[in-house]
Amino acid sequence: MAERCDTLLLNGTVVTMDARQRVIGDGAVAITGNQIVAVGPSAALVAAYVPRQAIDCLGCAIIPGLINGHAHVPMTLLRGVAADMQLDVWLFGYMFPLEQRFCDARFVATGARLACAEMLRGGVTTFVDMYYFEDEVARAAADAGMRAICGQAVMRLPTPDAASLDEGLARARRFIADWHGHERITPTIAPHAPYTCTDEIYHEAAALCRQYGIPLLTHLSETAREVQEFRAERQQTPIAYARDVGAFGVHCIAAHCVHATDEDMRIMQQHGVGVVTCPGSNLKLASGLPPIRAFLDAGLRLGLGTDGPASNDDQDMFGEMLLAAIVPKAASADPTVVPARQAFALATSSGAGAIGMAHLIGSLEVGKRADVTIVELGRAHSTPRYRYDPDAIYSTLVYAARAADVRDVFVDGRAVVRDRTVMTLDEAAVLRDAQAIADRIDQFLIEREADLLDKIIVIAGVRSDEQFEVQAKARLATPAAVERVLAALHDPAITLGKVSERTQYDTFFLWDDATLGRIRIREDRRTDPGARPTPKYTLTLTGALRRHTGHPALIVGHARYTAVADQPIRFYREYFAPDRVVEVQKQRRRWRIRFRGEDLAVNLDHLLGRDDPATYLEIKSRTWSARDAAVKAQLITELLAQFGIDEQTLVNREYVDL
Amino acid sequence: MAERCDTLLLNGTVVTMDARQRVIGDGAVAITGNQIVAVGPSAALVAAYVPRQAIDCLGCAIIPGLINGHAHVPMTLLRGVAADMQLDVWLFGYMFPLEQRFCDARFVATGARLACAEMLRGGVTTFVDMYYFEDEVARAAADAGMRAICGQAVMRLPTPDAASLDEGLARARRFIADWHGHERITPTIAPHAPYTCTDEIYHEAAALCRQYGIPLLTHLSETAREVQEFRAERQQTPIAYARDVGAFGVHCIAAHCVHATDEDMRIMQQHGVGVVTCPGSNLKLASGLPPIRAFLDAGLRLGLGTDGPASNDDQDMFGEMLLAAIVPKAASADPTVVPARQAFALATSSGAGAIGMAHLIGSLEVGKRADVTIVELGRAHSTPRYRYDPDAIYSTLVYAARAADVRDVFVDGRAVVRDRTVMTLDEAAVLRDAQAIADRIDQFLIEREADLLDKIIVIAGVRSDEQFEVQAKARLATPAAVERVLAALHDPAITLGKVSERTQYDTFFLWDDATLGRIRIREDRRTDPGARPTPKYTLTLTGALRRHTGHPALIVGHARYTAVADQPIRFYREYFAPDRVVEVQKQRRRWRIRFRGEDLAVNLDHLLGRDDPATYLEIKSRTWSARDAAVKAQLITELLAQFGIDEQTLVNREYVDL
Repeated sequence: MAERCDTLLLNGTVVTMDARQRVIGDGAVAITGNQIVAVGPSAALVAAYVPRQAIDCLGCAIIPGLINGHAHVPMTLLRGVAADMQLDVWLFGYMFPLEQRFCDARFVATGARLACAEMLRGGVTTFVDMYYFEDEVARAAADAGMRAICGQAVMRLPTPDAASLDEGLARARRFIADWHGHERITPTIAPHAPYTCTDEIYHEAAALCRQYGIPLLTHLSETAREVQEFRAERQQTPIAYARDVGAFGVHCIAAHCVHATDEDMRIMQQHGVGVVTCPGSNLKLASGLPPIRAFLDAGLRLGLGTDGPASNDDQDMFGEMLLAAIVPKAASADPTVVPARQAFALATSSGAGAIGMAHLIGSLEVGKRADVTIVELGRAHSTPRYRYDPDAIYSTLVYAARAADVRDVFVDGRAVVRDRTVMTLDEAAVLRDAQAIADRIDQFLIEREADLLDKIIVIAGVRSDEQFEVQAKARLATPAAVERVLAALHDPAITLGKVSERTQYDTFFLWDDATLGRIRIREDRRTDPGARPTPKYTLTLTGALRRHTGHPALIVGHARYTAVADQPIRFYREYFAPDRVVEVQKQRRRWRIRFRGEDLAVNLDHLLGRDDPATYLEIKSRTWSARDAAVKAQLITELLAQFGIDEQTLVNREYVDL
Repeated sequence: MAERCDTLLLNGTVVTMDARQRVIGDGAVAITGNQIVAVGPSAALVAAYVPRQAIDCLGCAIIPGLINGHAHVPMTLLRGVAADMQLDVWLFGYMFPLEQRFCDARFVATGARLACAEMLRGGVTTFVDMYYFEDEVARAAADAGMRAICGQAVMRLPTPDAASLDEGLARARRFIADWHGHERITPTIAPHAPYTCTDEIYHEAAALCRQYGIPLLTHLSETAREVQEFRAERQQTPIAYARDVGAFGVHCIAAHCVHATDEDMRIMQQHGVGVVTCPGSNLKLASGLPPIRAFLDAGLRLGLGTDGPASNDDQDMFGEMLLAAIVPKAASADPTVVPARQAFALATSSGAGAIGMAHLIGSLEVGKRADVTIVELGRAHSTPRYRYDPDAIYSTLVYAARAADVRDVFVDGRAVVRDRTVMTLDEAAVLRDAQAIADRIDQFLIEREADLLDKIIVIAGVRSDEQFEVQAKARLATPAAVERVLAALHDPAITLGKVSERTQYDTFFLWDDATLGRIRIREDRRTDPGARPTPKYTLTLTGALRRHTGHPALIVGHARYTAVADQPIRFYREYFAPDRVVEVQKQRRRWRIRFRGEDLAVNLDHLLGRDDPATYLEIKSRTWSARDAAVKAQLITELLAQFGIDEQTLVNREYVDL
């Protein structure tokens, strides 16, 4: 007597990923409620069940819903906004400032919905997320009918949704309390990474996870630099640190681990840490080739993830499976490493283990949740199919099939995608909303990229420091001319103030369009005995120089903005992308002087690394108005006369323009 | 006054890839005949042209047709047949035997048609191919409306379409003469690789290419092993060799070059060689990480290819662009390497240069051939789009877009794909034909994989060598027992023949299902003075041992097949995939004897690496029939008595089973 069931998927190749990794050539899966009630040959299940709906899967593979083990799904909205940059330029120049400015609940809700649409279309039924305003991600996933572990990100720095770590922890507590017990959503906390967190954050997070029986999400050892700096500071690896602060006392889902040492792997294996490797992101951000073979050799619980779509740029687990299979082959010169079946397991059965959900998902077995993806095969790029080798189906799925081949998707027995249509959200509206937010970001970037000051403020904050300067410059060709200036400084009309000696290394960023201004990065290194030993680094944006209207030999400089330069030159070069870079190095002796009641500076400069043996005299004064500038110009003209400077030797250009 | 044109593609983002790499935000392309007649803003072209057909490309990118610079397109039929194996197992165990058996004109025609359907769907308009029966590839490409450079493969070994290199060269000459002058197909010759060719083949090929003004196709320095072996043999790299045999005296399109040295790159740069890198294949076959950054730094004309679909497994240039962008980043720990724009160029403008067709294709410019691909953007995985940065479109195309996003394709102004439908071939019929051929291969493999003898014959040829052996074995626990045998050998009833000493290293492959038989790989090393110094390697398939019916202490061995074992153990282990591998090492003294008119062998064996100090006596004789076996068994029983062997010491198992 045939039993009733809700849905019968039949006539497909069922890739069970059960303990025996059975593949059923002409197979079927019967679903009732949110559970799988039978898996077997089509003929047997057709005989045994009377389904409410029967779905013909002829020519398709019926596979466990794919598991994206690590993502920041709202970042779909930042997909393609910036790429091919060094990590620091990408993070500090783009991601952080854009998130700080644009990331709010609406941004997160929209980005998460877009990601759900994309993931569902690509056969993903479960994802693990870490972001801000994580309750919005939870809501989007719940509405889309997906299964998710949602981690509220916490770090010691201010974030878009928390001004302090206390606020962040409170937000995480509230989020977990609100969502705990949901059928498909597991709310949790995600300390961002050892280098952005404190011991306290990890302790609190572990306590929360223990209290609720939920996993702790974090990033570990993603880049070589991060590991190196952490070791220098703490004399231990980020992974050993994570253990010591209790992160491994609960089930920890650790993303990346690209630079895990052998000892780190042993630690993670001992503590049952779930490692989620993200090859697409690791490659694109040049974090390194993920040591997938070593992860497997170490017996780690290994999953696979896309990471955020700003660094991938897809939420495409088919793409990740392909990379997980082929990258380790080339890296180890061994094509037998990570065969297709193993790569497929990373996104299914093994991935479920890594995220602590192996009892619910990851395989097609009776009693498990009915999370099922149906992949159409036999298309031009996936024809032909071979059957002599049971592993051929994995080869087809990993090396030939693509996300776009996904036809139907079920989560908890509910059809969330049918015939390539997402049933649970209004995809057109989501696409529209997403583009609308992106358009605002785009407009912001158009304005910012066109204006150097805006670009500086984004990375250096809103400390503006505009000033004008009147200056004269003369080339002193002979030692006698220099002696004359030095002697004249002792004229009783001049009060000498601070005297200093320094070497200044200036790097100028210049643009063909001079109206943009120019940027100077200065390393100022004191050379007089007893002076501060560490150099000062400043970044200065100047407008174009103008001749002084009244005194054609004088120039008016306009420094629009000065900030501390705390990044390497390379960062600024890549961030500002100048048309030309010119370096100027000089030794400078400087006298602060007072002359007729005004403060001025007198510099005697010798340019380094040039053929020019001359000494240059500069007389400079800050100025505040056109009237004030006229006064200062007059004083400078008088000083020039006093120093015996010939009009012929005046130079009305800056060193960088010589 | 508006001019007429045939086709106007409008309202799309036109990615020209012209010298200035212009991107036109709301752009259009006008086509008349097979040429592009205008490229510009939509508004301007709408005003200037009255088109026969206008195609709205709103939300799409209009890009140059993609160029697949290296492929073996008929191998689509072998897609997924074997993967995750060492190169030798894959080639000698699968590719070569399957090609030798199944590759004929029909196979090539069908596989090429399938590949054309796949490539067109993925926006590829031009491909460079190298295979057998290449006239069928040319015909398929011509019929599909594609542009192609078709290289008839030639090598010194017998191929599916030529028993000798002379025959191969003659076939290439005929093919070129037949197809030369075709509007879209460039027929040429493809010496397979330095390690499979002769000087003569390269000389002849270069002469042919010079005569017709066509490019020469070849593989160079794909694997480290190939380069190492070639250098050991010839004291030069394959690339230096290719230059010396004239391959670079014409325009050479060299595939792979993964292991090119700096000097190799200099040579190729000097000779204007077009290098085609195939990252997907290089990774999957573990050939190495292609040095794309070094190729670019060396100023090489660089293109991008999929390689054959048996090692990729797609003919998907979007996938290759992605790999070309992200693999070098991770390999050099520098995310600024190969930005998206450069990766895109490899499949378009730069790729056209590499294959010598930059004057015709690779960019959207007036006067060039109208090879155009229209890619739908704004889908869930490619939303949102950013415009502030002109490079954002490349980022979207390379990091987010996929082959399945291709909507329309034009070649020579002809619509070959419209709304994701291939217009130039009956795709359903092609898929059917392809699967039908694959089914025959599948059946062959099902039979072969189930039968060890078939598996051996495939790699070792059809030399069958079945034989039966009757044998007795006794364990001589004491030196006295051994002495007794040695003395008994001098009995006048025994005529001593050849005597020898050897060490035998046997590796047994065993299966849980004993009816399959077992395989023994033997290294037989003579240790008696003056004997041949090089060991002999043999592979023997044996059936299950049987006890001799008349003499329960005797056993009958059945060696079904013996062949020279010219591959490493690892090859056989991976190829045969046994359930268990057992090694047996022994020192053997052997006497050929004649006894009562029959030939027998007496062995005294000492097992190495075991705790067993005993010497084993074996008496063996080949046998031909049941009657003959009874005679031999009687003789062996007599000898056992003569040697003083106690029934208790008889052992009716082989060493591997002890």
